[in-house]
Amino acid sequence: MADSPNCDLKSLSPLQLFEKVTEQGEKVRALKAGKAPKDEIDAAVRMLLSLKLSYKTTTGQDYQAGLPPKDLVLINNGTAKEEDEDLVDPWNVQTSNAKGVDYDKLIVRFGSSKIDTDLINRIERATGQKPHHFLRRGIFFSHRDMDQILDAYENKKSFYLYTGRGPSSQAMHVGHLIPFMFTKWLQEVFDVPLVIQLTDDEKYLWKDMTIKKAYEYAKENAKDIIACGFDINKTFIFSDLDYLGASTGFYKNIVKVQKHVTFNQVKGIFGFTDSDCIGKISFPAIQAAPSFSSSFPQIFNGKDNIQCLIPCAIDQDPYFRMTRDVAPRIGQPKPALLHSVFFPALQGAQTKMSASDPNSSIFLTDTPKQIKTKINKHAFSGGRDTIEEHRKYGGNCDVDVSFMYLTFFLEDDDRLEQLRQAYTSGELLTGELKKVLIETMQPLVAAHQERRKQVTDEIVNQFMTPRKLAFEF
Amino acid sequence: MADSPNCDLKSLSPLQLFEKVTEQGEKVRALKAGKAPKDEIDAAVRMLLSLKLSYKTTTGQDYQAGLPPKDLVLINNGTAKEEDEDLVDPWNVQTSNAKGVDYDKLIVRFGSSKIDTDLINRIERATGQKPHHFLRRGIFFSHRDMDQILDAYENKKSFYLYTGRGPSSQAMHVGHLIPFMFTKWLQEVFDVPLVIQLTDDEKYLWKDMTIKKAYEYAKENAKDIIACGFDINKTFIFSDLDYLGASTGFYKNIVKVQKHVTFNQVKGIFGFTDSDCIGKISFPAIQAAPSFSSSFPQIFNGKDNIQCLIPCAIDQDPYFRMTRDVAPRIGQPKPALLHSVFFPALQGAQTKMSASDPNSSIFLTDTPKQIKTKINKHAFSGGRDTIEEHRKYGGNCDVDVSFMYLTFFLEDDDRLEQLRQAYTSGELLTGELKKVLIETMQPLVAAHQERRKQVTDEIVNQFMTPRKLAFEF
Repeated sequence: MADSPNCDLKSLSPLQLFEKVTEQGEKVRALKAGKAPKDEIDAAVRMLLSLKLSYKTTTGQDYQAGLPPKDLVLINNGTAKEEDEDLVDPWNVQTSNAKGVDYDKLIVRFGSSKIDTDLINRIERATGQKPHHFLRRGIFFSHRDMDQILDAYENKKSFYLYTGRGPSSQAMHVGHLIPFMFTKWLQEVFDVPLVIQLTDDEKYLWKDMTIKKAYEYAKENAKDIIACGFDINKTFIFSDLDYLGASTGFYKNIVKVQKHVTFNQVKGIFGFTDSDCIGKISFPAIQAAPSFSSSFPQIFNGKDNIQCLIPCAIDQDPYFRMTRDVAPRIGQPKPALLHSVFFPALQGAQTKMSASDPNSSIFLTDTPKQIKTKINKHAFSGGRDTIEEHRKYGGNCDVDVSFMYLTFFLEDDDRLEQLRQAYTSGELLTGELKKVLIETMQPLVAAHQERRKQVTDEIVNQFMTPRKLAFEF
Repeated sequence: MADSPNCDLKSLSPLQLFEKVTEQGEKVRALKAGKAPKDEIDAAVRMLLSLKLSYKTTTGQDYQAGLPPKDLVLINNGTAKEEDEDLVDPWNVQTSNAKGVDYDKLIVRFGSSKIDTDLINRIERATGQKPHHFLRRGIFFSHRDMDQILDAYENKKSFYLYTGRGPSSQAMHVGHLIPFMFTKWLQEVFDVPLVIQLTDDEKYLWKDMTIKKAYEYAKENAKDIIACGFDINKTFIFSDLDYLGASTGFYKNIVKVQKHVTFNQVKGIFGFTDSDCIGKISFPAIQAAPSFSSSFPQIFNGKDNIQCLIPCAIDQDPYFRMTRDVAPRIGQPKPALLHSVFFPALQGAQTKMSASDPNSSIFLTDTPKQIKTKINKHAFSGGRDTIEEHRKYGGNCDVDVSFMYLTFFLEDDDRLEQLRQAYTSGELLTGELKKVLIETMQPLVAAHQERRKQVTDEIVNQFMTPRKLAFEF
């Protein structure tokens, strides 16, 4: 956040801030129109987001172009309200806002770039495919160096995809599918190899769990991942506990990363303390290493310069900020990233879901009846208290969990927009919206269960065997 | 050092201390005569050594039975002189004493047990072999649980040997052979499997060295180790960088150790700081893991309860104190240890030798001429300044490096004793003693070079291939 202008803005009046935002918006437009270097545009966009944030903090209102501030309620004497900051790291996601985490703020804090219309259009041009609704709807909202991936791709240079999961339990919920659904789409439209890391060692280190159990969960979770429809000829799934003992390249990259990261650094990034076990302290290197193609000599023919693209939820970004910091120092390309928002709990968007609370989401093992009951009973509603009020004032899609879930799982844009309008206007009642969600999720989960049944242990073992994939490097 | 009585002894007079030492000596003799449990005897011996130390600190003189203190020079007001303490850890060995490190003191500080005549006799009975001169001469002077190994061995329960080397350079010196010579003897007399760890990852982490270089050194060093005459059917040599990626058991044990050791602990044991890289911080687990037989499923048929005996220089003990602390918590037997003294540099016993200073020792690549020149030019002499004085007062074998080297390499006890007496009496001059050493080392090094020539890359690869050994488990 070195380029955050917050500290200099405290003394500005709301009107001065409004002018600064307007000015910066014009600058961004001019840069884009003039086809300025991507870096420059990114920096200007970050500055714009940061200014908008300062404006909001000072005025309590969102910036609206052409509408200078009036009726101001100054909050917090115009200073940034620390306790309002969302907490986002690999183990915690907390926000006090019912709409969920403030993602524009996260982009500024993490120093990533917003996935804007230009980038989405460019992906469409490069692949010749309609962008996935996760892109169109801002579910994947932030990136690092995606333009570099596209530059290379347009020059016929391949890359590979890397994503993963921490197998903390047998039970996966529909939110866990988000990165895999999106990764599957990326793999199909770009036709590139994919590696999927199951961090069973991490779960052993963090949880009260045996190594055997963690590995069992990894294999169980692999079944759900495979059921998303990955191509066995293009995908390698690995458990750390397995693959570390079966690869000539993986450990070498781990130890390289471990040489270039100090305890001070992981303390700063992950909040480790002196009382943490040395396994936790060195683990970030194990999540970092698959970002380097030399960790998979069997796939990349020993090449160490194939770039990596990582689709993941934004809470995993700290691992890869660290990785990107180390990469040039060990002579490896920095991985690029695509960040998703968090999937909300049924009870509301304030927290990330928990696999340990069966009512916090729809699980991949739920029956149609369980899905119906959970949604009806637990899905936080943005509707009004009475039917009369709802008809009069309409519901609030920004906080309604059923509507949020539909943005993830209802692919039809027109239908979703109709629902939004009808709910917002009060025409559609909460019960009716929930019915649409139930009818969307029941067949989706049933189809997943059907596909999962086909995934035998034999198939899992094939996916998890280190081998050459259907690509030449 | 929980049982160290130092703190209570500060107020005692020299005479009172003398009486306490005498009393404790009698107690030890009584315990041994009464065949008391080994633990009890060990504790009593540690207490005795500690009392002797307090006596020496207070009086400035060694305790001598039957000679109460007189002409006392009180040093340090009778308190333990911290700055006099030898510094011994895996990276530093420093002492201000020309005789070298005070090993009795180390036994007390590290809480290990002295290898006494009883134990040596027991090894002789168990194996039916004359004890190695390293045992007879106190070169291996300290142990942990060697009696347990013998208990088990006498009950036909096998164990395995584990030793290692950090391949910091191509050049090995004769001192590096000590643990291997002794391990070879142990393997022969007990007929047990042996694993030898080459910590190339450690050297990469600690030194300014590439992974490739560290691995090359490991393979070069393996040749010198093999040239000691190890049995290929009973010995597995492995580089960490290699074997970690080739074993289903090694990483699992590493991560188990890493879960049970905190940063606070390694900070205390190894002196790591927040500025150290996370690779160093987690490395101790990698040196610990070969202490558990499940790290070698190919050798031990997956069994995790085969006990391990580690012959090593005492500076490696901190790793294994940590390992022994963790072992019961991860359901594994504690490794037993045999500790050697340090091999002195040619320039004197104050420091451990350095592979980076070619004159600090005799290297395995030295020619007969180089050996002669080095000894004549650099070997620190315990002789007198003039021939006349030497004839009159005699030389000092306790500080004479040529004599020290002969205790390591001249196997003939009678000859060594003759030399000691002749040198001490002044009959033998420094030049003559050096000549004996030259004539001992030249053929020894030449024979090593001859054997090393026979060690082809093919043989190294065979030793380093994970495989079953000539033992059933």
